[in-house]
Amino acid sequence: MTELLLYEAARAQLTVERIRPALAAGHTVICDRFADSTTAYQGAARGLGVDTVVPLHALATGGVLPQLTLVLDLSAEEGLQRAASARDKDRLELEPLAFHRRVRAGFLEIAGREPERVRLIDARGAEDDVAKRIQAAVEAQWSARP
Amino acid sequence: MTELLLYEAARAQLTVERIRPALAAGHTVICDRFADSTTAYQGAARGLGVDTVVPLHALATGGVLPQLTLVLDLSAEEGLQRAASARDKDRLELEPLAFHRRVRAGFLEIAGREPERVRLIDARGAEDDVAKRIQAAVEAQWSARP
Repeated sequence: MTELLLYEAARAQLTVERIRPALAAGHTVICDRFADSTTAYQGAARGLGVDTVVPLHALATGGVLPQLTLVLDLSAEEGLQRAASARDKDRLELEPLAFHRRVRAGFLEIAGREPERVRLIDARGAEDDVAKRIQAAVEAQWSARP
Repeated sequence: MTELLLYEAARAQLTVERIRPALAAGHTVICDRFADSTTAYQGAARGLGVDTVVPLHALATGGVLPQLTLVLDLSAEEGLQRAASARDKDRLELEPLAFHRRVRAGFLEIAGREPERVRLIDARGAEDDVAKRIQAAVEAQWSARP
């Protein structure tokens, strides 16, 4: 619960100090991790419950939520291998495999509930191939904008 | 909102690491500031709203809330004078007089809603006299316990 509230506190500050001014200036804002990650990590994998977490997102952000979330989907085993080779593990990456399986299940549940807003990207294979899949998903969303 | 969420995060950690174990060991726990202060400062004086703040207390503490809150009541002017002479001012004490008037109004509102649980202590006068008023309020609560 402490971890959840700290993430929401950080997000509240980020939203007011950075995201809202950027949106007001007409920019498109891209975040590496936002509310959907908290839903998957703290709501699903930590077991605090999606129904507990989702209202906090609205409170923390004042309703500024992503129009498009890209979930780079990979098996928990493969994802952990990539994270391990990239840099020192953080608090969440140090959790056991079962935790990361619950994280993935959490993301798949979010994508299942909101398939238009949350796009699953197959993250297997080469970086260039994954980048192409991301580009296609963003362009599809972009061309669909009013 | 960031400030509110940080207070709630700190309270979640304090409740799990200190308060729950102490209660489980049969101790009586006394806190200098707890959820009612957040209701008065962030809910009332900061204007986030009591209805926003109160559900967060339950979330952060898992329902561990005070059986008795003592509000040492003083005019905002006199309270600020005492705080100034005691030590360096903190973030909240640096707020202007109008803020501290809203804090006091917030506490009076809480006490009005829950007069049995929240006792107003007249904090004017000498320390010894205030201490006697506190003692009387605590003893009244103690003797009323089942």
